[in-house]
Amino acid sequence: MWLVGARGSVATTVVTGASAMRARLVPPVGMAGETAEFAGAGLPSLDDLVFGGHDVASTPLPKRAAELAQAGVVPAHLVSLVEDELAAADAEIRDGAGGPLREHEDQATAARRLADDISSFRDRHELRRVVVVNVSSTEPRFAAGPEHQDPAVLGRALRGGRDVLPASSLYAYAAILAGCPFVDFTPSTGMRLPALGLLAQERALPYAGSDGKTGETLLRSALAPMFTGRALRVLAWSGTNLLGGGDGATLADPLAAASKTTSKGQGLRGMLGHRTDGDTRIDYVPALGDWKTAWDHVLFEGFLGVRMTMQVTWQGCDSALAAPLVLDLARFTARAHEAGCSGPLGALGYYFKDPLGTTEHRLPEQYRILQDWACALGRPAGAA
Amino acid sequence: MWLVGARGSVATTVVTGASAMRARLVPPVGMAGETAEFAGAGLPSLDDLVFGGHDVASTPLPKRAAELAQAGVVPAHLVSLVEDELAAADAEIRDGAGGPLREHEDQATAARRLADDISSFRDRHELRRVVVVNVSSTEPRFAAGPEHQDPAVLGRALRGGRDVLPASSLYAYAAILAGCPFVDFTPSTGMRLPALGLLAQERALPYAGSDGKTGETLLRSALAPMFTGRALRVLAWSGTNLLGGGDGATLADPLAAASKTTSKGQGLRGMLGHRTDGDTRIDYVPALGDWKTAWDHVLFEGFLGVRMTMQVTWQGCDSALAAPLVLDLARFTARAHEAGCSGPLGALGYYFKDPLGTTEHRLPEQYRILQDWACALGRPAGAA
Amino acid sequence: MWLVGARGSVATTVVTGASAMRARLVPPVGMAGETAEFAGAGLPSLDDLVFGGHDVASTPLPKRAAELAQAGVVPAHLVSLVEDELAAADAEIRDGAGGPLREHEDQATAARRLADDISSFRDRHELRRVVVVNVSSTEPRFAAGPEHQDPAVLGRALRGGRDVLPASSLYAYAAILAGCPFVDFTPSTGMRLPALGLLAQERALPYAGSDGKTGETLLRSALAPMFTGRALRVLAWSGTNLLGGGDGATLADPLAAASKTTSKGQGLRGMLGHRTDGDTRIDYVPALGDWKTAWDHVLFEGFLGVRMTMQVTWQGCDSALAAPLVLDLARFTARAHEAGCSGPLGALGYYFKDPLGTTEHRLPEQYRILQDWACALGRPAGAA
Amino acid sequence: MWLVGARGSVATTVVTGASAMRARLVPPVGMAGETAEFAGAGLPSLDDLVFGGHDVASTPLPKRAAELAQAGVVPAHLVSLVEDELAAADAEIRDGAGGPLREHEDQATAARRLADDISSFRDRHELRRVVVVNVSSTEPRFAAGPEHQDPAVLGRALRGGRDVLPASSLYAYAAILAGCPFVDFTPSTGMRLPALGLLAQERALPYAGSDGKTGETLLRSALAPMFTGRALRVLAWSGTNLLGGGDGATLADPLAAASKTTSKGQGLRGMLGHRTDGDTRIDYVPALGDWKTAWDHVLFEGFLGVRMTMQVTWQGCDSALAAPLVLDLARFTARAHEAGCSGPLGALGYYFKDPLGTTEHRLPEQYRILQDWACALGRPAGAA
Ligand SMILES: NC(=O)c1ccc[n+]([C@@H]2O[C@H](COP(=O)([O-])OP(=O)(O)OC[C@H]3O[C@@H](n4cnc5c(N)ncnc54)[C@H](O)[C@@H]3O)[C@@H](O)[C@H]2O)c1
Ligand SMILES: NC(=O)c1ccc[n+]([C@@H]2O[C@H](COP(=O)([O-])OP(=O)(O)OC[C@H]3O[C@@H](n4cnc5c(N)ncnc54)[C@H](O)[C@@H]3O)[C@@H](O)[C@H]2O)c1
Ligand SMILES: NC(=O)c1ccc[n+]([C@@H]2O[C@H](COP(=O)([O-])OP(=O)(O)OC[C@H]3O[C@@H](n4cnc5c(N)ncnc54)[C@H](O)[C@@H]3O)[C@@H](O)[C@H]2O)c1
Ligand SMILES: NC(=O)c1ccc[n+]([C@@H]2O[C@H](COP(=O)([O-])OP(=O)(O)OC[C@H]3O[C@@H](n4cnc5c(N)ncnc54)[C@H](O)[C@@H]3O)[C@@H](O)[C@H]2O)c1
Ligand code: NA
Ligand code: NA
Repeated sequence: MWLVGARGSVATTVVTGASAMRARLVPPVGMAGETAEFAGAGLPSLDDLVFGGHDVASTPLPKRAAELAQAGVVPAHLVSLVEDELAAADAEIRDGAGGPLREHEDQATAARRLADDISSFRDRHELRRVVVVNVSSTEPRFAAGPEHQDPAVLGRALRGGRDVLPASSLYAYAAILAGCPFVDFTPSTGMRLPALGLLAQERALPYAGSDGKTGETLLRSALAPMFTGRALRVLAWSGTNLLGGGDGATLADPLAAASKTTSKGQGLRGMLGHRTDGDTRIDYVPALGDWKTAWDHVLFEGFLGVRMTMQVTWQGCDSALAAPLVLDLARFTARAHEAGCSGPLGALGYYFKDPLGTTEHRLPEQYRILQDWACALGRPAGAA
Repeated sequence: MWLVGARGSVATTVVTGASAMRARLVPPVGMAGETAEFAGAGLPSLDDLVFGGHDVASTPLPKRAAELAQAGVVPAHLVSLVEDELAAADAEIRDGAGGPLREHEDQATAARRLADDISSFRDRHELRRVVVVNVSSTEPRFAAGPEHQDPAVLGRALRGGRDVLPASSLYAYAAILAGCPFVDFTPSTGMRLPALGLLAQERALPYAGSDGKTGETLLRSALAPMFTGRALRVLAWSGTNLLGGGDGATLADPLAAASKTTSKGQGLRGMLGHRTDGDTRIDYVPALGDWKTAWDHVLFEGFLGVRMTMQVTWQGCDSALAAPLVLDLARFTARAHEAGCSGPLGALGYYFKDPLGTTEHRLPEQYRILQDWACALGRPAGAA
Repeated sequence: MWLVGARGSVATTVVTGASAMRARLVPPVGMAGETAEFAGAGLPSLDDLVFGGHDVASTPLPKRAAELAQAGVVPAHLVSLVEDELAAADAEIRDGAGGPLREHEDQATAARRLADDISSFRDRHELRRVVVVNVSSTEPRFAAGPEHQDPAVLGRALRGGRDVLPASSLYAYAAILAGCPFVDFTPSTGMRLPALGLLAQERALPYAGSDGKTGETLLRSALAPMFTGRALRVLAWSGTNLLGGGDGATLADPLAAASKTTSKGQGLRGMLGHRTDGDTRIDYVPALGDWKTAWDHVLFEGFLGVRMTMQVTWQGCDSALAAPLVLDLARFTARAHEAGCSGPLGALGYYFKDPLGTTEHRLPEQYRILQDWACALGRPAGAA
Repeated sequence: MWLVGARGSVATTVVTGASAMRARLVPPVGMAGETAEFAGAGLPSLDDLVFGGHDVASTPLPKRAAELAQAGVVPAHLVSLVEDELAAADAEIRDGAGGPLREHEDQATAARRLADDISSFRDRHELRRVVVVNVSSTEPRFAAGPEHQDPAVLGRALRGGRDVLPASSLYAYAAILAGCPFVDFTPSTGMRLPALGLLAQERALPYAGSDGKTGETLLRSALAPMFTGRALRVLAWSGTNLLGGGDGATLADPLAAASKTTSKGQGLRGMLGHRTDGDTRIDYVPALGDWKTAWDHVLFEGFLGVRMTMQVTWQGCDSALAAPLVLDLARFTARAHEAGCSGPLGALGYYFKDPLGTTEHRLPEQYRILQDWACALGRPAGAA
């Protein structure tokens, strides 16, 4: 597993957690992939995972894990027990791109460097395959232009010395060069440019995204079908997210927040079948740290126009909610690659706020689609 | 449609609402049966429904409707526009049994009287069929005994002058005698006695129940699958229901409340797959009237044992939530009878807290089962 | 009582409510001025109030009251019972200024016209005094300039044909010209310009403001002293206000919202004694109408740094909360004028989010100050 | 300070916290007694406190502190830093009474033993005075009888071999015998028997109680005055408390819970001036541990009868909220004894759900009374 943003809160929780489960220190709570439901999908075992990645920060992984323990995101006693695995993973983290470190490097060179890091990681550990998972900081929204339509045009533009791709798309490009499937757990652009889609298709590479569904949006996708199933008409759906740690700081910048709220907003209109009043906001509250509190207020109309309300408050630890999804996404994507799937994996919509390759946002339907697909993946090799 | 408890809040909202929709005064918000999803199920149209029923209270229906309008349960301007239909329905309400009115009547005679009322209603209005729907006050829990196992034994016991059946079961028995399907929207015993089940089966009568799923339990059955689907472990699920009007007064009696909380508790343990801490309480708050407020607090464990919480507050108008379900239940049951179904209609589990004929409590699965069954009902005559 | 914004939701609720209480149709719930606590303050009786005002809208008051009844803000049956008083008040509403109607009128002429309207109202009804209360739409924030420092300079500038004052301050100026005390229930500039303060002082006129404290801020001013009294350290105080009707539409404009959130923010920092994380937002949710829902989330630190939270959800009808305060403010201000008070009435801080003439925001202290002042007002004529 | 229930969650948090503050490891957050407001009251310094106590459990204090650290009630790193003080206090804990250990001991002997333990503690540590603070498990409600009216009659009854006093009152009696002031942080009977009151008065001993006000009741006593101050009429006040750790297990027994809910219920009726609908419940949720969650729902009526609601959810760590109050109560009571006060200290009502010696429940008024009293305590020796 190659984590882009390898020293972030989510990434650190992934490595700490996987190591603890491998050492049978904790049960796989939060890991749908480990439930009986998907036993037959042929997912790679947690025991076979090796971790590496790119980041632009330098804090060693064991120190990041200790910080998360201090904030109650991971149990303190676990961190000390998995220090070796954290150190081993840390040793496989290379300088990323798009950060302050290598400003003068043109993006073609950067892509080649990133791809070589990934290939070297694969070869040195004799891995069957590497899945690249983006858990780096949320990027501001990005408008695709003429250079992003065709692979050849893009190739030339990249060598032109000007920054043509946002970092997330540069990593997607590097993954393609290294022959690796790509999973985007962030709301950033990533693989979502025509030229990259075509390249991935040419190399028969599967990819999944975007933006992990962990808290408020998970709730909305479970509750919206309840209202429509009962023919109750939602008049207004308002949401406030209070977040401190990790991505919270990044989202304090309105542009980055916009890409998150856009991706958050995708589902609701589709699931309800009509627009509703109400905004969804993300407020940066440093003191809350990784403990995201989301309050949703739904005003709905029932029989004979009677007005009623539902309020839900979600107090979740964001990285603890994200990490198990990242582990499952990487394993499902690896299995898909092994089974010969390529292009956007719509069946993984269950994990995303803004799912690629599907228009389905309703959690129950997404779960059924994932079950059916996993069942097909379970059959001997052949296109799923 | 023959409503047992015809002068109650739910019943009055049913008649008021159906009349208003028939007069195209309001859209069918709250009526799943009127959504495109079930257009092909061949349900009887709202325009063809005729209302009658039994009650032990005497307040005329138009006055009950005015009271509900005063409480904001139904819009005041509608009540005056549908006064004739309310009066017509009121004229078809007969004295019930099990109330103070006819204490000395033995239950065999009572059953015969109730059945004759229903048959006379069917004949006078030349109705193809009558569905008996129980929306009378919640009864205390009832323990079945030897007289309730076999139809013949039950018949003799009924003529013994001693009260052998709770009122809800007497109405179920009368429905059978009158050749009518029976729907129990209450948590009372109703058809749920072996002797009655056998009788219904003999007369090829379908029946559905029990206890309409309108608020807190509806939410739980939408949210529990979200937790299990994400392998999140629920440690405690606590619930407080504050209720004033209608059934609220009845539920102030701990015994009646017990039958409600038992039926409420059925689903959660099954959906989560394990017991959890936490109680579900019903508190009588007269001042709240029909506006039920339910607060649920869920403590759950995520990745690496991190503890998180979700709270949801539901502020619903109980009768407005119940009435559209009662109308759809009656029409689905009528269609099932027409299509030759008999015995407990498990596919209607979608509507009940404590569903007969199925062990499925998860709302998404219940909805899919209802869709498939409705699709089969849509095909030309033949056992669904 | 002369209401600026006389056809708004708050104003209409004021007139409807006062008329209903005068006719002994309803008890004075919400009226602190009618409790035993202030019986000795010598406030003018509700029976002696006469209503008039300015507005730039034209919808007749009886129609506005019917609209509020439709929205459940005032009881429908009351509106019909007080139709004459509504019509009488409507007949005393004159064209305001600063609206679309009289764009070409220079502000000196406008002020003269407004003052004449108020004086004519006083003379025709032989009133001892008229209190002008601003309940017009919230204005965007306004920066005072050189013309606003000195009465004479202001006078000349007003005749200059250029709009020198925001509407709220023009009304304050007109009130001074008409010799009337001024109450600003809005967060707009109103009397809060040095030149107007001097003029009011010269004419020995009392004035009060700003921005009625009805919902979230009322709660905060009751709860903040609880935390400080227990030496509990608030780390973050976040607030989300969802509002539809009346002022909601105006506050959808970020500039107007800014004046509201600034006035809302005044108190907290002062009461807690230090800055905290967390924002206070106002979101326009048309479907909610006049029913404002405010959710506050407080993260605080207790003994040995343990972190705890408190959440409070307020679901209030804004106009119903505002109207009784407007009635009491007008009567207290009238009594103060009668007792010879002049300048900002700090003792009325109890009623305001952003109180003039005091730095005290804590509700308990504000209530004690009001009690002491009311007691002094109760003594025979003499400066309070 | 002599803690009855010295090995409980509250007591352990008291000793851990006091030790940490003495070592300047943490600031005195939560300690009103350490704020500028009470600097002049002459309270004994935290540095001068010595801890001992009685308990019927045997788990060593350092181990109890480690358990609380594991539950996040006290910071783990602090516990190790104050191990010596914990061990020192542990060495001063003696076998209590009323537990399983010494069933055959008659209560007169037990009282003598308990008193001797306290006196020996005082003498050995050369302490000016010892304040006995009851933080032992909540007792079921207890009905006073003839033996409890007069000290002499009580004395004889105690030697009669039959248990005449609940444990809490036996400790109060022992405190009197040892010449010590007594503080009851629990809702148990304690000093609240006529005979004990007389004895305390004879020995010029001050005492305070009952039942520490830490969460839901603290909130109610801050919010009720807000409603009455605005003449808003509360129609229903419902409360649900979910509690696991410490006292939670004890309160799972309905009889013990009843003494807690009775004491909780005392204030509301008095503060609002009238009865309201709504119950207050305590539900035992083991999984929640020491983290008490209280949800209150208030239905209130405003202007012209419009109905509105307020909901507040308090998520507090009970022992962390209780411990600082216990430390301040002991120091205020010590100072009162030093200043010659005796009998019930009504001025400490600020700290109690069911305050002795006062009928005032409103938090703001209680705080003012405490301030005035503390100011008087500050003046040189003389009856306060
Ligand atoms: N936690 C959740 O519930 C959740 C849900 C959905 C999406 N996400 C997304 O996951 C991502 C990570 O969240 P987090 O809380 O771990 O954030 P974080 O800030 O803790 O970690 C982000 C990491 O990315 C690194 N980074 C930034 N720019 C980089 C670059 N150009 N190349 C390589 N690394 C770079 C940072 O140095 C940091 O180590 C965010 O984009 C967030 O939106 C998180
Ligand atoms: N409203 C909801 O959301 C909801 C949800 C699930 C179940 N239910 C059930 O629906 C039923 C009705 O609720 P409601 O609010 O209308 O109650 P209600 O008290 O307003 O009405 C009950 C009616 O039943 C009548 N009744 C009582 N005993 C009778 C008897 N022996 N024979 C005939 N009639 C009798 C009463 O006179 C009354 O008119 C209750 O059992 C309730 O538990 C309601
Ligand atoms: N309702 C509350 O809880 C509350 C609390 C604090 C402050 N306020 C303030 O009270 C004011 C009124 O609130 P509302 O809900 O009644 O708003 P509203 O929009 O219903 O009424 C405002 C009225 O002011 C009139 N108006 C606008 N410009 C005017 C002008 N230049 N001259 C004269 N009239 C003019 C409008 O035509 C309208 O009739 C707002 O400023 C609001 O911020 C309300
Ligand atoms: N934590 C709060 O917010 C709060 C608030 C108000 C009141 N209180 C009261 O404080 C008390 C302690 O609460 P806790 O959470 O520490 O409970 P706990 O159960 O953790 O501690 C109670 C201690 O009392 C001991 N005990 C029991 N019977 C005894 C006896 N006869 N003699 C001596 N010791 C005995 C127990 O062994 C235990 O160590 C309870 O009565 C509770 O109602 C707590
Ligand atoms: Na999310
Ligand atoms: Na408490």
